Amino acid sequence: MITAAVLLIGDELLSGRTQDLNLNYIANKLVERGIVLQECRVVPDIEEMIVEAVKALSTKNTYVFTTGGIGSTHDDITQASIAKAFDKPLITHSEALKLLEEYYGSHINDTRRRMARAAEGAILHAKMVFQIENVFVMAGIPTVMQGMLEAILPVLNHEDPILSVTVKAYVFENDLADELTTLQATVPDVSIGSYPFDEEGHIKGTNLVARSRDAKKLAIVKDQLQALVDEKMRSF
Amino acid sequence: MITAAVLLIGDELLSGRTQDLNLNYIANKLVERGIVLQECRVVPDIEEMIVEAVKALSTKNTYVFTTGGIGSTHDDITQASIAKAFDKPLITHSEALKLLEEYYGSHINDTRRRMARAAEGAILHAKMVFQIENVFVMAGIPTVMQGMLEAILPVLNHEDPILSVTVKAYVFENDLADELTTLQATVPDVSIGSYPFDEEGHIKGTNLVARSRDAKKLAIVKDQLQALVDEKMRSF
Repeated sequence: MITAAVLLIGDELLSGRTQDLNLNYIANKLVERGIVLQECRVVPDIEEMIVEAVKALSTKNTYVFTTGGIGSTHDDITQASIAKAFDKPLITHSEALKLLEEYYGSHINDTRRRMARAAEGAILHAKMVFQIENVFVMAGIPTVMQGMLEAILPVLNHEDPILSVTVKAYVFENDLADELTTLQATVPDVSIGSYPFDEEGHIKGTNLVARSRDAKKLAIVKDQLQALVDEKMRSF
Repeated sequence: MITAAVLLIGDELLSGRTQDLNLNYIANKLVERGIVLQECRVVPDIEEMIVEAVKALSTKNTYVFTTGGIGSTHDDITQASIAKAFDKPLITHSEALKLLEEYYGSHINDTRRRMARAAEGAILHAKMVFQIENVFVMAGIPTVMQGMLEAILPVLNHEDPILSVTVKAYVFENDLADELTTLQATVPDVSIGSYPFDEEGHIKGTNLVARSRDAKKLAIVKDQLQALVDEKMRSF
């Protein structure tokens, strides 16, 4: 199983200033490639916390995707922190520096050169995405992050996509709980989730979501879920 | 310093099915009360991962707020996992059971009674929020979660609110980096962040955000940031 973790870096996500949109975007792209997103962490711009998270997540997963903290200002400490997590020196990456010099021309300066820094041994992908060991480093701004992710998706190993089907039911999950437990026990390869939904501020029903890599099994479970809901509706 | 962590529980957040809105909401409410949100984790409905996260976050923070996984279906394992994290048995909380029986009347059944389960010793707050040690357990649906949070905010210890000011500058952060580093060094009590913003898909400038509990210091830094931006604009 190919697994991944996302590490969102930035004070602004924990102060409430910024609503994160990156986790959801990355999650959808990984699902399409059959990569199982196992965990996400959000940490502030504090070296110790970034180091700890990178160590923990990179050990447990095939890939780690970070967002945020790669600009040139004093609070951009992602590259330095990742270098520290892997016990490597922070160096200026010559190929990245060359690209920055070409891009900025005569406007290049030391501040801009800082964006060419990464842990020793870092691999440079398109769109200036650095890869250090199994960690891919992306920007925090959604539009920029999305372009960077697009650039690295082709280099990732992938599996059959994880498919999902949804049965929307105007039935409370309490009234489906026993039947769902029974059904889930008979289909170990399909993961069934139950998500109450609200409309106009009140819980009105339940979305039943089944997920699997096996399209045939999923189609059968969808029919079983629909039958379960239909029967329950008739019984009211 | 009063600190907090948020733990978002649910497969749907990691599969890309659901865009989280709870972290940002909780973050804003905590900032108003001067509680420093240090970290957030998002984990799936897997007991081992919930247990590990609850242990780590509850040890390191004054408070932990969880969302998700408190319904009555097979995938709602939050209460059982928190009980395990604190090495306590999962019991039926008599006061919670009484409330459920009053609410459901003759419609009470074993499935609904499951929602009265929590770790032994759990404290029951208004809106059915359980507190186990320093962990507050809330629903995943935003509207429900918001009501639950409102119910427990009064019981939390709090400090002076963390204030923030923003200076919006149509200047790239590269062009402000050196001056910001210098300014930050002179004001250790104020945290200065630099956030590029985009308009119409392109990065157009930088939001400079200063945060502190000290309104007077913050006002001075705001003026300094504005002066810095004005000077930079004049120099172009």
